[in-house]
Amino acid sequence: MEVFLQEAKASSRVLAQLNGAQKNRVLREMAKALRMQSREILNANALDMADADKNDLTPALKERLFLDETRIEAMAVAIEEIAALKDPVGRVLDGWLTEDGLKIEKVSIPIGVIGIIYESRPNVTSDAAALSFKSSNVCVLKGGKEAQHSNVAIAKVLQSVLKANGLPQALISLLPDASREGVSKLIKMDRYVDLIVPRGGEGLIRYVSENATVPVVKHDKGQCHTYIDADANIENAIAIALNAKVQRPGVCNAMETLLVDRVIAEEVLPQLKEVFDSAHTQLKGCDETRKSIDVERATEQDYDTEYLANILNIRVVDGVEGAIDHILRFGSGHSEAIITENITTAERFLNAIDAAAVYVNASTRFTDGGAFGFGAEVGISTNKLHARGPMGIEGLTTYKFKIYGSGQIRQ
Amino acid sequence: MEVFLQEAKASSRVLAQLNGAQKNRVLREMAKALRMQSREILNANALDMADADKNDLTPALKERLFLDETRIEAMAVAIEEIAALKDPVGRVLDGWLTEDGLKIEKVSIPIGVIGIIYESRPNVTSDAAALSFKSSNVCVLKGGKEAQHSNVAIAKVLQSVLKANGLPQALISLLPDASREGVSKLIKMDRYVDLIVPRGGEGLIRYVSENATVPVVKHDKGQCHTYIDADANIENAIAIALNAKVQRPGVCNAMETLLVDRVIAEEVLPQLKEVFDSAHTQLKGCDETRKSIDVERATEQDYDTEYLANILNIRVVDGVEGAIDHILRFGSGHSEAIITENITTAERFLNAIDAAAVYVNASTRFTDGGAFGFGAEVGISTNKLHARGPMGIEGLTTYKFKIYGSGQIRQ
Repeated sequence: MEVFLQEAKASSRVLAQLNGAQKNRVLREMAKALRMQSREILNANALDMADADKNDLTPALKERLFLDETRIEAMAVAIEEIAALKDPVGRVLDGWLTEDGLKIEKVSIPIGVIGIIYESRPNVTSDAAALSFKSSNVCVLKGGKEAQHSNVAIAKVLQSVLKANGLPQALISLLPDASREGVSKLIKMDRYVDLIVPRGGEGLIRYVSENATVPVVKHDKGQCHTYIDADANIENAIAIALNAKVQRPGVCNAMETLLVDRVIAEEVLPQLKEVFDSAHTQLKGCDETRKSIDVERATEQDYDTEYLANILNIRVVDGVEGAIDHILRFGSGHSEAIITENITTAERFLNAIDAAAVYVNASTRFTDGGAFGFGAEVGISTNKLHARGPMGIEGLTTYKFKIYGSGQIRQ
Repeated sequence: MEVFLQEAKASSRVLAQLNGAQKNRVLREMAKALRMQSREILNANALDMADADKNDLTPALKERLFLDETRIEAMAVAIEEIAALKDPVGRVLDGWLTEDGLKIEKVSIPIGVIGIIYESRPNVTSDAAALSFKSSNVCVLKGGKEAQHSNVAIAKVLQSVLKANGLPQALISLLPDASREGVSKLIKMDRYVDLIVPRGGEGLIRYVSENATVPVVKHDKGQCHTYIDADANIENAIAIALNAKVQRPGVCNAMETLLVDRVIAEEVLPQLKEVFDSAHTQLKGCDETRKSIDVERATEQDYDTEYLANILNIRVVDGVEGAIDHILRFGSGHSEAIITENITTAERFLNAIDAAAVYVNASTRFTDGGAFGFGAEVGISTNKLHARGPMGIEGLTTYKFKIYGSGQIRQ
């Protein structure tokens, strides 16, 4: 593994010398090659699907694993969209003259070698490779073992394009040892690897965070809340709450707990129950909620659970301060919303809540790179440092200071 | 320790509600209190100095530990300078309207609870506390055990000002268990602590990086180089090389190895020897260097050593590519310089070298917050992520997205 990563690191020097036009040409060739060689990829995917049957994978997992011509076309289009983005490296982020007459430029540069650990979807292989290449980073990919044949086939196509362009294949590679031991070695190789991006279940992310010596940008838990204030426009509030829960319950920016101001609880709870019942949402409530509507009792444990399913806790709180108390205790720092027409209450909530995205009068479902207008999304970071929240391709860059002098020495 | 850190985290809520004027008033009172209570601090420092005698500390260590009225005045002035800085939190870093009509503001906010681990200088206690307070962060300070009495006395003065202003003392505190075990607990408390800033010897920093689950911003090794190109202005080159080595050899931005282009080696090396001899620099050289000047032989190990002393390696290289090869192998990513009048050579060096600060025609000694014009310096980060290079008070902030809607739901 060490030799393999040494090669990856060494290859980053070649990448640093490609300009934007050269990178984009290679990316467009990769898109073309995926389309041309779709047969090989589909054959490999068929092997993974056969194994999936043999190993009795769940229908949901098989659905993620499955590839067809349409999905390969989508992968190719995604690479073309990444090629169309502005080059994220070489941007002058800041610049100034010092008192000594030095001209300082703060310039965006690639991070270096990025290890990306993900699960069953094979399209992540080409997405992650294209995002890394566009940002002049070398990537080491580790996909799910259930998608191993598909990932190998996809990587082979991308590497053949690198080769045809006289570029080292080490720029895009799969981790040779895809076992848990392989991962545990990778995350300690801080001499060669500059960043680990784990995307997957809580167990994987916990393991990586606790054991890595390489910096980690996590994409994990979204324990998101919506608070309906006494001063809310009730019609908006109900539509937003419903959207935040049911539009796509299985994602990290979906709401898990709805907080309702005591002042309006009696009025609003029956209306909420009606719309959530129509959406087949399983409701749980605090004791006070249960005085107004007939729902299961929510436990402390429930407030701490990311359901990723059409289940919702409802809790009555004492105004915005009560909502803040609850969220500071149970929130995971992902996305939180307040519904209110009162500007002072809204600002109090926006300032007090420590989360990547804090909303006034909108659904938490908007927390993603696409909705934010970032063009391409690496993921949604739950780190507080480096990248926070929706992470565009800029999240794969760092910076250096270029300093232009004319003979200055320090006095 | 857990209860102590829980309290620290809880107190950050109070801090978030102070505006800039309130914070600055408290900081100015702290400066005043240090002056007023200098007697108590000096008495405590005398105890540390007595222990230092008893334990046979080196003169250099004692010099760092020692406090007098002048040094306490300097600490007070430093706090007043920090008070005078622009508030680093609440800045709107970016803002835009999305296609859905959401107004997104990216706003700087405090990181939360910061653990700062440092060594003998007691003034770091008040500097770090003031920088943290100004940026609305709670700090947990762990100084060197040889400065324990001084640190306790300084923290007591600062805490008395917090108390007089009705603020929780947990905003600024010393780690109760200052042993190695205390540190090893602290760096794993990611539930309560958001960032660790270790400043000290290589051993400490290595230990913290390898064992922390809390994110770490390191301030460690500076293996800095200066490369004299064939197209250099030789007079500038010699002045810059001398300055980079001898102006203050014990700091991380001082040069450790000088690289000289083969084309001009024979001409330049004797001149370099002359100036370095006058500065009593101990020179070591590669075989080719030793053909021109009579110096000790430099080993591979020497190229990898941060002397922090008036010792210099000299190596003859094949042009800018040879210099880049050497620096990519031995550099620590801190500060690197090229001396050349050729614009293409300069740009090649600036782009190829992966370091926080890359210089053309200036001394590496300029890498610090003061020289960069940052006002106050937290340190010089050798991280590639979050903060890189000289780290101003902005390095103690992160951001969140505030999103203003008018009833938007996700389609």
